[in-house]
Amino acid sequence: MAFAAPVAEQRFVLDQVVGLPELAATEMFAAASEDVVDAVLEGAGQFAEGEWAPLAKVGDTIGAQWTVDGVVMPAGYPEAYRAYVEGGWGTIGAPEAWGGQGLPFALQTAVLETLGGANTGFALCPTLTVGAIEALQHHGSPEQQALYLPHLATGEWTGTMNLTEPQAGSDVGALRTMATPRGDGRWSIKGTKIYISFGDHDMAPNIVHLVLARTPDAPPGTRGISLFLVPKYRLDADGKPGTFNDVRVVSIEHKMGLHASPTCVLSFGDHDDCLGELIGPEHGGLRAMFTMMNNARLNVGLQGVQIAEGATQGAVAYALDRVQSARAGSPDKAPIRIVDHPDVRRMLLRMKAQTQAARALVYYAAGQVDRATLGDAAAKGRLELVTPLAKAHATDLGNEVASIGIQVHGGMGYIEETGAARFFRDARITPIYEGTNGIQAADLVGRKLGLENGAVFAALIADIRADAKAAGLVELVEACDAAGRRLATADADDKLAASYPFLTMLSVATCGWLMEREAAAATGDDDFATMKRASARFYLEQIVPEALGLVAAANASAEALYAVPAEMFAA
Amino acid sequence: MAFAAPVAEQRFVLDQVVGLPELAATEMFAAASEDVVDAVLEGAGQFAEGEWAPLAKVGDTIGAQWTVDGVVMPAGYPEAYRAYVEGGWGTIGAPEAWGGQGLPFALQTAVLETLGGANTGFALCPTLTVGAIEALQHHGSPEQQALYLPHLATGEWTGTMNLTEPQAGSDVGALRTMATPRGDGRWSIKGTKIYISFGDHDMAPNIVHLVLARTPDAPPGTRGISLFLVPKYRLDADGKPGTFNDVRVVSIEHKMGLHASPTCVLSFGDHDDCLGELIGPEHGGLRAMFTMMNNARLNVGLQGVQIAEGATQGAVAYALDRVQSARAGSPDKAPIRIVDHPDVRRMLLRMKAQTQAARALVYYAAGQVDRATLGDAAAKGRLELVTPLAKAHATDLGNEVASIGIQVHGGMGYIEETGAARFFRDARITPIYEGTNGIQAADLVGRKLGLENGAVFAALIADIRADAKAAGLVELVEACDAAGRRLATADADDKLAASYPFLTMLSVATCGWLMEREAAAATGDDDFATMKRASARFYLEQIVPEALGLVAAANASAEALYAVPAEMFAA
Repeated sequence: MAFAAPVAEQRFVLDQVVGLPELAATEMFAAASEDVVDAVLEGAGQFAEGEWAPLAKVGDTIGAQWTVDGVVMPAGYPEAYRAYVEGGWGTIGAPEAWGGQGLPFALQTAVLETLGGANTGFALCPTLTVGAIEALQHHGSPEQQALYLPHLATGEWTGTMNLTEPQAGSDVGALRTMATPRGDGRWSIKGTKIYISFGDHDMAPNIVHLVLARTPDAPPGTRGISLFLVPKYRLDADGKPGTFNDVRVVSIEHKMGLHASPTCVLSFGDHDDCLGELIGPEHGGLRAMFTMMNNARLNVGLQGVQIAEGATQGAVAYALDRVQSARAGSPDKAPIRIVDHPDVRRMLLRMKAQTQAARALVYYAAGQVDRATLGDAAAKGRLELVTPLAKAHATDLGNEVASIGIQVHGGMGYIEETGAARFFRDARITPIYEGTNGIQAADLVGRKLGLENGAVFAALIADIRADAKAAGLVELVEACDAAGRRLATADADDKLAASYPFLTMLSVATCGWLMEREAAAATGDDDFATMKRASARFYLEQIVPEALGLVAAANASAEALYAVPAEMFAA
Repeated sequence: MAFAAPVAEQRFVLDQVVGLPELAATEMFAAASEDVVDAVLEGAGQFAEGEWAPLAKVGDTIGAQWTVDGVVMPAGYPEAYRAYVEGGWGTIGAPEAWGGQGLPFALQTAVLETLGGANTGFALCPTLTVGAIEALQHHGSPEQQALYLPHLATGEWTGTMNLTEPQAGSDVGALRTMATPRGDGRWSIKGTKIYISFGDHDMAPNIVHLVLARTPDAPPGTRGISLFLVPKYRLDADGKPGTFNDVRVVSIEHKMGLHASPTCVLSFGDHDDCLGELIGPEHGGLRAMFTMMNNARLNVGLQGVQIAEGATQGAVAYALDRVQSARAGSPDKAPIRIVDHPDVRRMLLRMKAQTQAARALVYYAAGQVDRATLGDAAAKGRLELVTPLAKAHATDLGNEVASIGIQVHGGMGYIEETGAARFFRDARITPIYEGTNGIQAADLVGRKLGLENGAVFAALIADIRADAKAAGLVELVEACDAAGRRLATADADDKLAASYPFLTMLSVATCGWLMEREAAAATGDDDFATMKRASARFYLEQIVPEALGLVAAANASAEALYAVPAEMFAA
């Protein structure tokens, strides 16, 4: 099944959910004219369909390989990456000062969706580069920016995020990698990082590692970590990659999926010859990290959209083609396409609805990034509130939709050759990395609900309440409001005990709100508008009520969880 | 993580849910004394832990391999299979007349759970043999029984089920494999079958294929299919495997999981030299197939239990060991085991509760098999009603629990070495084979709700209603009753449109009922009883209310599904 970029849907969501025309009316985003946006969406679609999608299979079956000389990408990847750089697809959202196009983050989101829809693992590489650009843009010195950003903005060099160590996963403050000052303004870096996506590869002449490390006498925990820029090759006097900087890839992980993306164990300073530069102030690593991480979270949520879209396209194509059994009660007993069997149709409509809901949620959050960039304080708060929803719920939906995709294929779905299984395997990491979905839920109840004394949460509820028309959505927003207000003042354990069901409820309420808006805007009688109304209707009639089933869990206390000692779980 | 057979739990469920002591009080099952049951459960546990569990990893990583000489199992499998035969583990439920022990099906279910908990793919081999035994026992001639059953009952020879062809999946009536009479009472078999689990292997001297085929001038569809016994090697005058019977394994599938189980494409009669014997009457294949299939469906549901148990054990062990982050609000900020973080604890309690619920449901159904064997007519109806629930819902739960198992492991869960990913990959076929879960839902609303004019369904509702104490369960059983009565008279499309959500609701109501009974029986203050009450409480307080969220979907009509033409799904 060939991937087709969902350009009409992207354009519709950018217009109706993001409000792109409003953004384009500002001086900052004046370049995002209707023509430019169409050209970008269509061009990215053609590029991704033609150059990246055909490589998805070999990316999965052969995958990135570790060798003594470093990581070797599958055949075709270096060329396809070069074509991406040369096509300017990396520059969409990058700052104009450094050679980027300075277009809205929301438009960059759509382009990344297309690239990742074509090839999820491959698209992780540019996704990480975007994070490095943002960190340098906000926290780098002018010299650092001048040396590195032009090469990152084009994608000529790629970026990585180095947080995790074996003992420091969700607990990033437990990291032990050391940075020792050399007296010349540079630092010696020593330590091992794990789970470094695209930590090494053969597609770019340099890789810019952003590394969290501890400096001598730093306070314990997250307050003592600092961010360092550590290139794979040091820059020479002309700013070109020169001497090898003692960053070695020790191994890559044997993962269930996402094989096109090498997940590296990186060893820094094995030969005591790894140099780094501090980004931002010493001990300011956590703040810099969050700059990278917040938008990276949206981009991981976007992977949920990518996978859901690909899985849905595959399942729809199969169901339109596969003929099996007569329709129940049909007099002629002639076998029909499975798309016409009610339960298959229900699965497909669910896939469409959940994919569109995930996209609406992530694009909506991306639009808040642009509004915040324009100085809209309310958008900044809204973005903070919806970021954990977009990351966690969109990745949950990617998994759900990929699983239904297998089911629609029947036995063929379990055979690797159809590709349905690849989506399912690829999807399973997304609720884990970039902060597990449990961490997102903890962030929601622990930090986000209390923003501005609850006013940020209350504003979202008020917006949904003002618009909601479907009976289920009206009921759900009130249930979210009540649960959210209770959780805001609950004790820490009770907050966390109910955090995940609450996150799901609030996500579904937000998606229901956006889907209802989309349906109202889809007034035509063309195929797209008709399908949109059907998806939104299914979402509001079936998926929103399901979320009401979570009210009990979102209002449960931690007491039931601790009624038995931990050891008894092994009984 | 070493697998440990859940012997105490099995014993408890056999006693409290199945009512094994009641069965043992009958003449037929008098052998199932308390001592024997203990010895079987413990012996099976030791055997599976010691001999089968250690092979699960190589079964996944190397897997069964296709060669020109047939399928070669991974190292250790033939020996471990022989040990299984010699230990008598295949004979538990097999008829005494043929060398079996004639113990209750429910006890055999527990043994199969243990074997499959240790090694899910491997245990599929005996599971299929059990199906072949049942088919021969009920439909074979005395000669066929005498020749084959003694070898199948011990597991010395293994059995297969050959239904599917490329164009005939869920629509089994579309099969084309031909059986032509030779005039000597035997038939020439010719055709290709796909998805044949353990269709070939090197662990037994013969394989007994049960093959659905069409005879000349047979009516179209399912009314024209007949069942044939087709051995891999024909029996010589002494009843020993002799001449090769022209059954060739053409390839094995490259699947996402369950690699220890070779999924074969079998070609019958490539050289026009494949002989088969009719089992039962000509055109009676469907009835014979259902004999195999009904209990096979329970055994696939049991795979959900196996996988859920294994995944839960792995996640609990990891969470008790992995230290990460301080408890929220803790003054000393000392990192704790992740089992003590509320959201992790919630995931583990959910895993425990869903695993126990799946086991209760499948064992309950297995108990009805024994009661039906004893001549209890009500049990026969109850069995028919709960079979689709056990197959579909228990496999859905296996998938859910395996997915949570990955999440508990965090990044480690995505790395193949931990084993969490294996459960997740293995689980995904179970909602598909042996009748997709959508087919189960169709069976529920299309055939089972109407059994005895609805009296069978009404009796289950009445039983749950009479016992239900938890408020959510009380509400859920009424919702099931109302939805079920509506569906019984709905038109075909409307029935099917709501079938899957209804199946889930009714399954959760049944599980909730059984879990409530289990909790009431777990009166001790030992670890087991304490954990049981906590799991049941979580089930009733959080999972039962979730199912109430499906009421809207279970009452939706098909109209919304067909509001757009099929082609628009590709828009």
